[in-house]
Amino acid sequence: MKNGESTTINAAETSSGSKGNVPVGEASAYAATKAAEERATAGWKRGVAIFDFVLRLCAIAAALGATIAMGTTDQTLPFFTQFFQFQASYDDLPAFSFFVIANAIASGYLVLSLPFSIVCIVRPHANGARLLLIIFDTVIVTLTTAGAASAAAIVYLAHNGNSSANWVAICQQFTDFCQRVSGAVVGSFIAIVILMFLVVMSGIALRK
Amino acid sequence: MKNGESTTINAAETSSGSKGNVPVGEASAYAATKAAEERATAGWKRGVAIFDFVLRLCAIAAALGATIAMGTTDQTLPFFTQFFQFQASYDDLPAFSFFVIANAIASGYLVLSLPFSIVCIVRPHANGARLLLIIFDTVIVTLTTAGAASAAAIVYLAHNGNSSANWVAICQQFTDFCQRVSGAVVGSFIAIVILMFLVVMSGIALRK
Repeated sequence: MKNGESTTINAAETSSGSKGNVPVGEASAYAATKAAEERATAGWKRGVAIFDFVLRLCAIAAALGATIAMGTTDQTLPFFTQFFQFQASYDDLPAFSFFVIANAIASGYLVLSLPFSIVCIVRPHANGARLLLIIFDTVIVTLTTAGAASAAAIVYLAHNGNSSANWVAICQQFTDFCQRVSGAVVGSFIAIVILMFLVVMSGIALRK
Repeated sequence: MKNGESTTINAAETSSGSKGNVPVGEASAYAATKAAEERATAGWKRGVAIFDFVLRLCAIAAALGATIAMGTTDQTLPFFTQFFQFQASYDDLPAFSFFVIANAIASGYLVLSLPFSIVCIVRPHANGARLLLIIFDTVIVTLTTAGAASAAAIVYLAHNGNSSANWVAICQQFTDFCQRVSGAVVGSFIAIVILMFLVVMSGIALRK
């Protein structure tokens, strides 16, 4: 192409004849048309990538908020009874410890994923970065859901107790503790909903 | 093209000159090259779709097994103590009821998704069906994880109890009940891992 050589091809022959063998002229025409097609979707893909980046920032806020809210939960009661200790802390219950670990991992991952999201903005056709994000987003959404759901199960038990298993509702004593823990669980579920959106959006962007 | 007309194009001119305007000859060459390219990936995509179908069948077995194992759990003790009732059933604990509902929905969805998976096998380039599957798979994997994790949190509590909250380990009495419930949770987590693979595989298939 650089030498200015011209290739003559017969279009009617092309559409019927050659199937696998692609001549030089066709390859060039193909590349030109493909480039025009890609430019048309590039703007749209960039918009999705910017929205992806903003959603990631929101998810970081939600996950980090949930981690900190749960990790600093600690309540000391001014009195004690036959059954309850003076103090309730999040690490008394393994489900809450898991919640903190899962949300901390999610926050860390989301911060580390920001550069890849920026790559998707700068180069809208970098499907490799997008595929990497969709794979790890799926893993992280599952991890965060597991942490939030197990914490929610324990919070429900703390609020309502269970007469069949003879588990008492501890929230009647530890009201502040329970409110803070409930807030952390809500924050984590917000992060999960955002992460689900991110997976679906990456899928739509990969399709085009 | 049908009239047998032949179009002569200069490839050197094409690559430098025309950017947006695509002549008829180029469009045909483009279509032919694109068709050749698509045939190359069709076989690979069909392989992924068949693997997707088989994995879906495995996930149905796991989710349905977990639902049935949990839904039929019921143990009556031959004795009773001051603290425990005669009978333990899965619907005594709301987390176990949620587990059954979540896994039943997942099983139902997976059965309904089989026709779409077959569409992906028959028409490997039907990205619409694949996108539909990735969206709903993401929702279902989150729902199933929430059910399994909350049930796992309660099962852990039933096995170990919690001294801080004064919750006793009921598994010392209800051994059969606890074993069956634990088995159901394991089955559900197997279904979750398969569903995560399905989401990632759909993402990879969409990329090509």
